[in-house]
Amino acid sequence: MSMFLNNAWYVAGWSSDLAPGQTIGRKFLGQSVVLFRTQSGVLGALEDRCIHRAMPLSQGHMAGEMIRCAYHGLEYDSAGVCTRIPSQERIPSKARVRSYPVQEQDAAIWIWMGEAERADVADIPRHAMHQDPAWAWRGEHFKVAGNWQLLIDNLMDLSHLPYIHPHTIGGDPDTHFRAKTVAERSDNGVVVRRHMPNSPPPPTYVAAKGFQGPIDRWQEIEFMPVMLRIHTGACDVGTGAYEGRREHGFSMMGFHGITPETEKTTHYFWSMATNILTPGVVDTVFEQTALTFKEDQAVLEQQQLRIDENPLAPLVDIGTDAGGNFARRQLEALMRAERATLSPAA
Amino acid sequence: MSMFLNNAWYVAGWSSDLAPGQTIGRKFLGQSVVLFRTQSGVLGALEDRCIHRAMPLSQGHMAGEMIRCAYHGLEYDSAGVCTRIPSQERIPSKARVRSYPVQEQDAAIWIWMGEAERADVADIPRHAMHQDPAWAWRGEHFKVAGNWQLLIDNLMDLSHLPYIHPHTIGGDPDTHFRAKTVAERSDNGVVVRRHMPNSPPPPTYVAAKGFQGPIDRWQEIEFMPVMLRIHTGACDVGTGAYEGRREHGFSMMGFHGITPETEKTTHYFWSMATNILTPGVVDTVFEQTALTFKEDQAVLEQQQLRIDENPLAPLVDIGTDAGGNFARRQLEALMRAERATLSPAA
Amino acid sequence: MSMFLNNAWYVAGWSSDLAPGQTIGRKFLGQSVVLFRTQSGVLGALEDRCIHRAMPLSQGHMAGEMIRCAYHGLEYDSAGVCTRIPSQERIPSKARVRSYPVQEQDAAIWIWMGEAERADVADIPRHAMHQDPAWAWRGEHFKVAGNWQLLIDNLMDLSHLPYIHPHTIGGDPDTHFRAKTVAERSDNGVVVRRHMPNSPPPPTYVAAKGFQGPIDRWQEIEFMPVMLRIHTGACDVGTGAYEGRREHGFSMMGFHGITPETEKTTHYFWSMATNILTPGVVDTVFEQTALTFKEDQAVLEQQQLRIDENPLAPLVDIGTDAGGNFARRQLEALMRAERATLSPAA
Repeated sequence: MSMFLNNAWYVAGWSSDLAPGQTIGRKFLGQSVVLFRTQSGVLGALEDRCIHRAMPLSQGHMAGEMIRCAYHGLEYDSAGVCTRIPSQERIPSKARVRSYPVQEQDAAIWIWMGEAERADVADIPRHAMHQDPAWAWRGEHFKVAGNWQLLIDNLMDLSHLPYIHPHTIGGDPDTHFRAKTVAERSDNGVVVRRHMPNSPPPPTYVAAKGFQGPIDRWQEIEFMPVMLRIHTGACDVGTGAYEGRREHGFSMMGFHGITPETEKTTHYFWSMATNILTPGVVDTVFEQTALTFKEDQAVLEQQQLRIDENPLAPLVDIGTDAGGNFARRQLEALMRAERATLSPAA
Repeated sequence: MSMFLNNAWYVAGWSSDLAPGQTIGRKFLGQSVVLFRTQSGVLGALEDRCIHRAMPLSQGHMAGEMIRCAYHGLEYDSAGVCTRIPSQERIPSKARVRSYPVQEQDAAIWIWMGEAERADVADIPRHAMHQDPAWAWRGEHFKVAGNWQLLIDNLMDLSHLPYIHPHTIGGDPDTHFRAKTVAERSDNGVVVRRHMPNSPPPPTYVAAKGFQGPIDRWQEIEFMPVMLRIHTGACDVGTGAYEGRREHGFSMMGFHGITPETEKTTHYFWSMATNILTPGVVDTVFEQTALTFKEDQAVLEQQQLRIDENPLAPLVDIGTDAGGNFARRQLEALMRAERATLSPAA
Repeated sequence: MSMFLNNAWYVAGWSSDLAPGQTIGRKFLGQSVVLFRTQSGVLGALEDRCIHRAMPLSQGHMAGEMIRCAYHGLEYDSAGVCTRIPSQERIPSKARVRSYPVQEQDAAIWIWMGEAERADVADIPRHAMHQDPAWAWRGEHFKVAGNWQLLIDNLMDLSHLPYIHPHTIGGDPDTHFRAKTVAERSDNGVVVRRHMPNSPPPPTYVAAKGFQGPIDRWQEIEFMPVMLRIHTGACDVGTGAYEGRREHGFSMMGFHGITPETEKTTHYFWSMATNILTPGVVDTVFEQTALTFKEDQAVLEQQQLRIDENPLAPLVDIGTDAGGNFARRQLEALMRAERATLSPAA
């Protein structure tokens, strides 16, 4: 729990967070970053500290294509190079701040906090539902006072649903206990599949789709460091849910951008999309999901309090941790490999 | 000021804090504990951290005789043994949390945070007034942002009464200065006696008993690690207060359960009983005592702020510290003995 | 940024902060001090911690010429000698707290936190405007959550005015960029002069003096460790501002008492005086100055947050830092000299 995976694409925000000419200060992986969009629409991400007197650049303003420090007016371009120091002609060559690779894709802003030369925008996970008129969606940004891996654990093991979320997506405990869970490594991540055939529909499902009788329900989780996609949903019993015919059913497609802020706090950029386009349904689904994820947030924050009291105390795994443990081991391997590439001096 | 006495009975709460089926999370001696009462009425006290993912058990609920974790539904019995892991048959043998000896007596819940094999419920101090119809009483629970020994100092040296509590139990300063104080070690603690013959009654005494003239007043403190009992009161002058005839006078019998929460914060479980059963008097006495103890709380918190600034700066004793110093020395001896019984490796 | 200059006079408060019989607790250079004025009017400054049980003396009350501890009534004179311990005759010789040299001058209370034998009240900077009917003034006390040297930097380099204070004393940026700045060491400090001839008047100047056309404007800064005086103002163009004829113009004479509270927090005792005695003008000038200095405070607090994140990261100087760097170097020399006089054991 003591470090980060640096060489990875992380969600830094939603595209809609930054209109042209706007700036935002956020911390990722323990580093303070200013995100901005220039007047012409170019995204930038710089170390959020002016080289002169450490003023956060996020307190400044866009001056055309440059970001201007609020204190003495120094200006920087998107590469972090200081381009203007008022009251003097000469600009020292060391007058630059670190810049971070940043890319907009599928309505999200992605950032790479590690070695810039390893960043390849082709590696950013796609989430086409954010652009597809067959889906309606809403996005959110929670700040969670807990370690990022606790949030991954939470999402990889949905056996907590009947306990933490009985009023929304949880539903009947026995349905969950009987559910067969299959966790597998994939090429670049982990997949967990959980099917609950012929089971009673939970409250959110009834609210959104109006199920009258038992359903064939699925939960399918894809972990791709460091985000998750969770497809949950149901069809009326025996109508093809497990044979790939799901369009007539109810789908919730969750996007989970998990970006460590510090070792003990996490940005949670999530969205929820549904295939039910009836007016009002996406709002209902979003509101119930927000309520659900607030319940998870409370859990993570309680866990963190206990872990802080005794950080080295062991945790005991149970059977339903299989998928989460695959994810943890994959992350550990990636972090180990990353450390190995660093020079001994570093 | 840097440690605790572990092998001792501490007040963990009032009996009325826990109805059947309820749970409470509290920290004692730096350790997080969940207190609960099962549906059948049995008290339990466990380490407040689920073995699985460190969720506080106090966030959970009673399931009959078991406490169930809120997150994934693991259940534990009062001995701390995990008795159920939903979704799996096998329960690992290491699936248990620490349990603490706990006992209900005289309307209080007592806990033993040290070596369980040394806990003997016969050692719990009795406080019969909590069961005796000749006394009316009320209990309270304050959280004090100060070290526990500062609270013991406060209660062992009542020469602060005219300064801190002039509006309630303090009264005339000269009465206090003239009072002869006798501090003595007892078999298992310290006793301080302070008599103020032929003195003016303080405000609370007049409010409760209606004294018209001067009184023979007493303050008698018993320290039994780690609680105190303080009997204060008065009779009209010359009517037997110092010869054991006090029933016709006014008595306030204070119970002071002092339980360290951390090195810098303290649970203060106190009650005040009076022998005046006239309707309303116990409420007046309780309210004035609560006001008085809030004044003490403010003092302790100010002291702690200064001590934190300079923890090693010496303190200078004065004459009225005799009783408090006996208590400190007794505690030091007990803590030293306790450390000596630990193995060198620990 | 890691230490203080101890042997210097610092502003501890305004004379009006302490009426006879009043006490105030404040921290200077990391040390908690009680300031008081006895019933007869004598100022005192003592370590704010009773020798007995560490109670802050500032929680106590004046008993005539003595300050009495709130807890057990110990009394101290202005030299810090304990003069009374209720309930006992003998007062131990070690019963004394540290006293600090303190002096009232020009409406401010000055304190010396270093070696008392080096304190000479003749070294306290005069600020005669506080006593001169030709000037009207108001004083304030801000608490700034930033290091004291950041505040000195701020005041020594006024090129931030057009960026941080455009709505009050800043005005047109080009005026500032064209201004020639001369920074020089003086006998016991630093002087910075900045002239802006034939320039448009900023908002506060128009509000106070009603300038109709361009002005000859000046900014003259005197740094005398550890306070600053800043004289700013203007006359109509060509009417003698730079030849010493300023009485017919508009003057703002700022007094800046900068007293470290801790390494990361600073007392800012400032006043603003003006030569315009028309009713209402001093209030306008004070209010606009308070607004201006609140803007500076926000800057300093943002800087401190970034510096805390990475205290060793370098800062890059720019040309306008000349005066501020003279001040920093002078402070460093004084602090180095101060450390050299300490015995090796200390």
